[in-house]
Amino acid sequence: MGEAAVRTVEDPALRAAMLRALAASAEVHGTTSPNPPVACVVLDAAGEVAGVGATRPPGGPHAEVVALREAGARAGGGTAVVTLEPCSHHGRTPPCTDALIAAGVRRVVYGVADPSPPAAGGAEVLRAAGVEVLGGVAATEVARGPLRAWLHTARTGLPHVTWKFAATLDGRSAAADGTSQWISSPASRAEVHRLRRTVDAIVVGRGTVLADDPWLTVRGEGGAPLDRQPLRVVVGTGDLPAGARVRDGAAPTLHLRTRDPREVLAVLAERDMVDVLLEGGPRLAGAFLAAGCVHRVLGYLAPKLLGAGPAALADAGVATVTEALCLDLEEVTMSGPDVRISAVPVPRGGRTA
Amino acid sequence: MGEAAVRTVEDPALRAAMLRALAASAEVHGTTSPNPPVACVVLDAAGEVAGVGATRPPGGPHAEVVALREAGARAGGGTAVVTLEPCSHHGRTPPCTDALIAAGVRRVVYGVADPSPPAAGGAEVLRAAGVEVLGGVAATEVARGPLRAWLHTARTGLPHVTWKFAATLDGRSAAADGTSQWISSPASRAEVHRLRRTVDAIVVGRGTVLADDPWLTVRGEGGAPLDRQPLRVVVGTGDLPAGARVRDGAAPTLHLRTRDPREVLAVLAERDMVDVLLEGGPRLAGAFLAAGCVHRVLGYLAPKLLGAGPAALADAGVATVTEALCLDLEEVTMSGPDVRISAVPVPRGGRTA
Repeated sequence: MGEAAVRTVEDPALRAAMLRALAASAEVHGTTSPNPPVACVVLDAAGEVAGVGATRPPGGPHAEVVALREAGARAGGGTAVVTLEPCSHHGRTPPCTDALIAAGVRRVVYGVADPSPPAAGGAEVLRAAGVEVLGGVAATEVARGPLRAWLHTARTGLPHVTWKFAATLDGRSAAADGTSQWISSPASRAEVHRLRRTVDAIVVGRGTVLADDPWLTVRGEGGAPLDRQPLRVVVGTGDLPAGARVRDGAAPTLHLRTRDPREVLAVLAERDMVDVLLEGGPRLAGAFLAAGCVHRVLGYLAPKLLGAGPAALADAGVATVTEALCLDLEEVTMSGPDVRISAVPVPRGGRTA
Repeated sequence: MGEAAVRTVEDPALRAAMLRALAASAEVHGTTSPNPPVACVVLDAAGEVAGVGATRPPGGPHAEVVALREAGARAGGGTAVVTLEPCSHHGRTPPCTDALIAAGVRRVVYGVADPSPPAAGGAEVLRAAGVEVLGGVAATEVARGPLRAWLHTARTGLPHVTWKFAATLDGRSAAADGTSQWISSPASRAEVHRLRRTVDAIVVGRGTVLADDPWLTVRGEGGAPLDRQPLRVVVGTGDLPAGARVRDGAAPTLHLRTRDPREVLAVLAERDMVDVLLEGGPRLAGAFLAAGCVHRVLGYLAPKLLGAGPAALADAGVATVTEALCLDLEEVTMSGPDVRISAVPVPRGGRTA
């Protein structure tokens, strides 16, 4: 049982349990940072779901412990299905590997391996204790899910940046007169609002503050700001207007007097920021892309044409077509009437931070 | 049998036969104009395919006659599945309704009704002769297929215009230095080349001729121009350079000294043009869209970012966001690595020609 076998076809039951864990992890996405939003499904010896758990806010128990508590004695001889390889180190809580071994699970199945040196190696600890371990189940889905930014930060030490934009089919993010409410559909705007709840920081350029005076706060159903707010980050060398909404105290705000994306990421890394949403404007997005500081592009393309008005992206350091920044499309889906495109910049020599 | 029943669930066998006819019609798309590219599948009394036929070039037999010939005596008591309601008038060939009745088919199934006054009414003629008639099978697919432009022209008397563009995800159709080879993928360029084979005319602005000097010819596998070439139409008031490739004699070329899209369509209608492909440039596309003279938008969005360079569309007469030209998305598919979006402009008061 000590060796992980090469399995080309995933066990459908394990895959289903992993996707259930993935869904449970989405519910805590945005509440665990800087810890990873992990979830665990415990199957009893008969393969029935005995417990489901997700990581609690920092200082609280990890997903495995929550799920094992729910499963109780039914965990014995069962299988723990976890999105991330269980940790084997003492942080603010004891190692999850200890809890799994103590509960007597026969097998541990995880989605993606833990790349962070102090916590990694959980699989080996489990195997040494006689637990069967299988990794890589639904790995693509898990790696693109709520763990995505945390995995990036664990590998690189820097925050993961998603550049989000909305544009018409002809690439305009506003009309000729500057009006932009609303390019994208209510469905897309609601989705972006849900996305904001999951991130640690929202970054905009000073120009966006001057032009649109956004709140950049996350609000609940009733319109009131939620308790947990992402950090509002304004990038630009000039002052911010005294009455700017980002200075309203409803959420923490950081004004970084630079235009260097690498400097921005370094400051955010110092503050333990993992998941960053870059919302514009066009030139700041261009600077981030040119510096290789964008790790995911999320575009909402509305089925509209304007024929005039500013583009969503400017000054990305591309002079000729052969220098175009290339993307790998991950997913093309519909968001209401809009086309939603998720893509990852293709690294070029030295481009990706 | 004289009344068409309301059927909410299509007979899968009839739907399958219709989709087979649709595929057969695609093979003759571009060779029948100004006649419609129709196809017919004849099922024998047992429901087996007995004949498949598509409309021959003008003067040749229509689809029904070709399919009935192949079916021979097996057509008796069988079903003719036709993409378009069979014609009942004497044109260059005798009415298809006569051929179907003479062959003794029990039932005729069609995809879309014939909207053109002289030919319409085939269903009634068949019913009067005791043939069961069922219309509307796979109607959406058929109406969006090879018959699309012909149906538009039958209804409006004007050509159907598809505006095709290629752009990056940020809406650029060329880089800052004007280079544009190649924004879209080899797969998309091959698809556009196949599309050109199906149309009657390719329209570009004079600016595109000056900037890109395109051939606008349709070539076969070996690179040699095909016998049947769409009309090359250059729109613009100034002269064309003597050495412009569109003047090479490899295909007919028409230079229209106007910038009024309605005037262009009127001239093309006089020449029996049904299916027109508008390939740019940005301002000509803007003029066509503003005048309501675009009936389908076909965009190839490459997974690339440029951050500078001209947009695919300009001067569409939109000043503010609430005036944006709205589209109904028909289909979002992949074309190699590119996202291919097919959409139909939403008519506004007086906008659609």
